Amino acid sequence: MNEINKLISGFFEPPIRDYIDKIPSGKQLRSRLICAIAKESDKRFLLSAIVETIHLASLLHDDIIDDAKTRRGAPAVFVTDGAKKAIMIGDIFYATAFSKLSAFDSAIAQIISEAVAKLSYGEFLDAELSKSFNTDRKKYENMIYLKTSALIEASCEAAAILAGKDRDRFRRFGALLGVAFQTIDDLLDITQDTATLGKPALNDLSEGKVTLPLIDYYHTADENEKAKALSFFKKKLKTNDAKRLRAALYKSGAIDKSRQYAAALLNEAKGLVENDEELLAAAESLISRIK
Amino acid sequence: MNEINKLISGFFEPPIRDYIDKIPSGKQLRSRLICAIAKESDKRFLLSAIVETIHLASLLHDDIIDDAKTRRGAPAVFVTDGAKKAIMIGDIFYATAFSKLSAFDSAIAQIISEAVAKLSYGEFLDAELSKSFNTDRKKYENMIYLKTSALIEASCEAAAILAGKDRDRFRRFGALLGVAFQTIDDLLDITQDTATLGKPALNDLSEGKVTLPLIDYYHTADENEKAKALSFFKKKLKTNDAKRLRAALYKSGAIDKSRQYAAALLNEAKGLVENDEELLAAAESLISRIK
Repeated sequence: MNEINKLISGFFEPPIRDYIDKIPSGKQLRSRLICAIAKESDKRFLLSAIVETIHLASLLHDDIIDDAKTRRGAPAVFVTDGAKKAIMIGDIFYATAFSKLSAFDSAIAQIISEAVAKLSYGEFLDAELSKSFNTDRKKYENMIYLKTSALIEASCEAAAILAGKDRDRFRRFGALLGVAFQTIDDLLDITQDTATLGKPALNDLSEGKVTLPLIDYYHTADENEKAKALSFFKKKLKTNDAKRLRAALYKSGAIDKSRQYAAALLNEAKGLVENDEELLAAAESLISRIK
Repeated sequence: MNEINKLISGFFEPPIRDYIDKIPSGKQLRSRLICAIAKESDKRFLLSAIVETIHLASLLHDDIIDDAKTRRGAPAVFVTDGAKKAIMIGDIFYATAFSKLSAFDSAIAQIISEAVAKLSYGEFLDAELSKSFNTDRKKYENMIYLKTSALIEASCEAAAILAGKDRDRFRRFGALLGVAFQTIDDLLDITQDTATLGKPALNDLSEGKVTLPLIDYYHTADENEKAKALSFFKKKLKTNDAKRLRAALYKSGAIDKSRQYAAALLNEAKGLVENDEELLAAAESLISRIK
């Protein structure tokens, strides 16, 4: 167990502590960025642990809201333990993370807590957008900025403050990386197969999430294709339908457009941290996922 | 609309703002205490608005967890708008309240955020205790301290810091008032009728909550009465059964015991604020509810 996971574990007593391992934590992108930006600060692990705890809390609640029954192939906590338990544990995780924030300057506490307010508002907008087939790119981009990017942006800015670095530059770096990260996630939902994803391919559309490639596809599609795409909204796609829709998305250029968009964001991000090998590597590792 | 409600309203844009009025806010006990303790501080209204926003967030989530379909006679948000919406709005309320806390000393931010961690852990323990007929008084007291008293305690301590007063004394005052407040709420569930309560009488037992008077009654009851009480656990009581159980609770002395307990807590609390008319009045107004 790494230093950060040890700290998160120390925030809680059993039985609350046991829930940490029930949530697949993923790549800990936020911690990697914090530790790379604030590598000389003793407090980088504590800040990372707080941000990861917030991230876990958001996953607990998001899975209920999205009715996402699996995460990285494992059943969601609301499935195994019930929605009430998932709400309560999420609240405990959020509140504990906030209480640990008071060990930091109020500027850092403010940046992180404002990001959580954005994140939860982004989750609200996501649910609102999912009510109908959204084709408004601006609305979608604003939502993913709030839901995914804001906490990554805040992590980078807070780490820069810890390290006495240029907070605006790292804030911008985090924001770019965050949007790129979500765009790549949206792409993978379309381009990867079920086994690799740990969830059904083209799952986003089934959940009512019309992501960037789907929005772009819709705007270039003819009336027949539009009707077809609309008919899949919030439906479980048959294998053949999924194959055909995937092929149409490739053919329309929508996949390429999103790939180029993500790559451009990542290139801009890399330009902001030119001399920092670790941060460049973090951006590169995201780029490699696009392929 | 008072100053505090105006501030809460200003924290949010529509459509989030609209949810404030959907949650009956009650007596705003926490704000009354903060404003009375820190009456000379310009920041008393902001601190009150933050604490009330936290309180609203906790109500949104608690009602889902307790499956409490009405609050003060009005349908709960999770009933009118769905559990997902209630989770999201609760998260937005919590996170916004935390982000506003950074306008205060880190000591105040820490006290309030630690109280929220206690509150959410108390909610977890409440749900755990409700799984079976709990007869352990200590466990129940610990749970209501966490769930109800901790935020009232923290409000008073934080207000004392704002006002440059003795924080330990006001912390103790708040803790006593909080436990008394919950004990009185537990009593009213038994002694008041449905119309006055805005919910069914003896509703706590139906929801699996074995409150102090019920615990005390259980320990003095004979085997028949014990079996009867157990048979009502998590059941909707018939009018006659409710009447009989209420009569038995009075007869056993359990009601009186809880009344005396609450009165003793309030008297101790009053002793801590002997010269403060407003705080004495707050304690008195709670005492008057016991009758």
